[in-house]
Amino acid sequence: MAKDNRITLYDLQLRTGATISPFVWATKYAIAHKGFEIDIVPGGFTGIVERTGGRSERLPVIVDDGKWVLDSWLIAEYLDETHPDRPILIGSRQVEVATKFIETWLWTTVLREWMPNIVQDYRDMSLDVDRDYVTRTRTPPGKTLEEIQAGREDRLPLIPPKLELLRTSLRETPWLGGEAPNYTDYRALAVFLFMAAVATTPVLTEDDPLRDWIDRGFDLHGGLGRHPGLHPLFGLKLREGDPEPFSKAPAAGGLAKRNTGPASTHEETERLQARMREATPA
Amino acid sequence: MAKDNRITLYDLQLRTGATISPFVWATKYAIAHKGFEIDIVPGGFTGIVERTGGRSERLPVIVDDGKWVLDSWLIAEYLDETHPDRPILIGSRQVEVATKFIETWLWTTVLREWMPNIVQDYRDMSLDVDRDYVTRTRTPPGKTLEEIQAGREDRLPLIPPKLELLRTSLRETPWLGGEAPNYTDYRALAVFLFMAAVATTPVLTEDDPLRDWIDRGFDLHGGLGRHPGLHPLFGLKLREGDPEPFSKAPAAGGLAKRNTGPASTHEETERLQARMREATPA
Repeated sequence: MAKDNRITLYDLQLRTGATISPFVWATKYAIAHKGFEIDIVPGGFTGIVERTGGRSERLPVIVDDGKWVLDSWLIAEYLDETHPDRPILIGSRQVEVATKFIETWLWTTVLREWMPNIVQDYRDMSLDVDRDYVTRTRTPPGKTLEEIQAGREDRLPLIPPKLELLRTSLRETPWLGGEAPNYTDYRALAVFLFMAAVATTPVLTEDDPLRDWIDRGFDLHGGLGRHPGLHPLFGLKLREGDPEPFSKAPAAGGLAKRNTGPASTHEETERLQARMREATPA
Repeated sequence: MAKDNRITLYDLQLRTGATISPFVWATKYAIAHKGFEIDIVPGGFTGIVERTGGRSERLPVIVDDGKWVLDSWLIAEYLDETHPDRPILIGSRQVEVATKFIETWLWTTVLREWMPNIVQDYRDMSLDVDRDYVTRTRTPPGKTLEEIQAGREDRLPLIPPKLELLRTSLRETPWLGGEAPNYTDYRALAVFLFMAAVATTPVLTEDDPLRDWIDRGFDLHGGLGRHPGLHPLFGLKLREGDPEPFSKAPAAGGLAKRNTGPASTHEETERLQARMREATPA
């Protein structure tokens, strides 16, 4: 397995050469986490079936010393099974469950909101060969991608507050995986790598507390997330009346000291939790 | 430690004798998970400091063969540390991170929405000695608890759809902890145990897919969650125009077969994910 310590990855790319697919991003990180070199097979949406010799309609796909493995989750499981002596990506069913929970939360809460604000970028950033396909499949009836994306400066400032739950988690741990990153981090980072690959305007503020984790994540494995085709994620400009993009300082009172539980940034919930455990005042 | 295999737990109870505090519920499950018998010290919010000999203003508190341990998270960690040979509750930093993520999501997304609909029940269910305290601390200026709770039949049907992310997770695994329950399940179940202890009206529909996990959870450890003081959680009546309480069947198409990832019930996200990995149609 992994002849010469190399694994072949079929990439899904933009015209910049950067990976677009969050699933391919997660797989790149998974391969690097296991200590393998990656041989990239370049390409876009068009011609996946031909490139993979009829084996797959979707990416990522890897080839490990002649063995083809399809689907990002199956690839991560395959890497753990065939190389249990190397750093573990998932390791237990409970990590798989938690990873899918956090990823689904990110997709439904944040990425879905971001999408209408980057669809024109998405098309413009596509490979020439993918342009018609992307235009056709991303355009709803009766509207152009330009019309959908227009006015995003009004909508983008409303999205950062929705990331508060992730900020709360990362205030107590360097990585979602604990002391070191694992596949949970890679699936979550992949959303931000996707955004950096596609969005031509920053979607998070300069001072977002998530920046520390995102920057460390992009730096991992020799700067795997530092492809020159990526755009700056940080630098979103707020205007008068926009909501606070994130909760300022964690509460520093007695509860924060005693309660190592969650929700330290959710003041209302914190009050709720405090009232459920506190005695009557003396 | 744990003389005669028994641990003393200071409870926080309602007039029914049922535990109200979700933190005490999680701690009860944690002690039982470790295979210990529980000696309950009964009581409500009033007099916690006195009951615990001045050691704590909050509950839960346990005493293990003379050793006092305060705070539900610290208790769970203490039980794992002192009894690593018994079933593990948390076991790793990544499980702790994931548990807090899922719990905070539950509190901020669902429990916070339920609270205004049960505040009158909360007071009415309180011990006589706690009634004034509960009334005073739960009542906002200018409104009675009756006024806040009134009209809940209009609001309660809007809340079950918000639990979809938890349903999605539990469609792929018997427990959040994987093949067996762990502290993640107990922290999440504690929210439903709290609701069953307090709410005098069902808050979930009879056919909610969460029912399987909740029922199995309440049955654990000799029916620890089957206290006779609990009310039925299932049986919420929907009226014309109320939203679907949960997503009906998981998608059964090619994506569901191939994509072992999350979001199978989030149709919009599913389409988004499908488009990000699919080749151009032939």
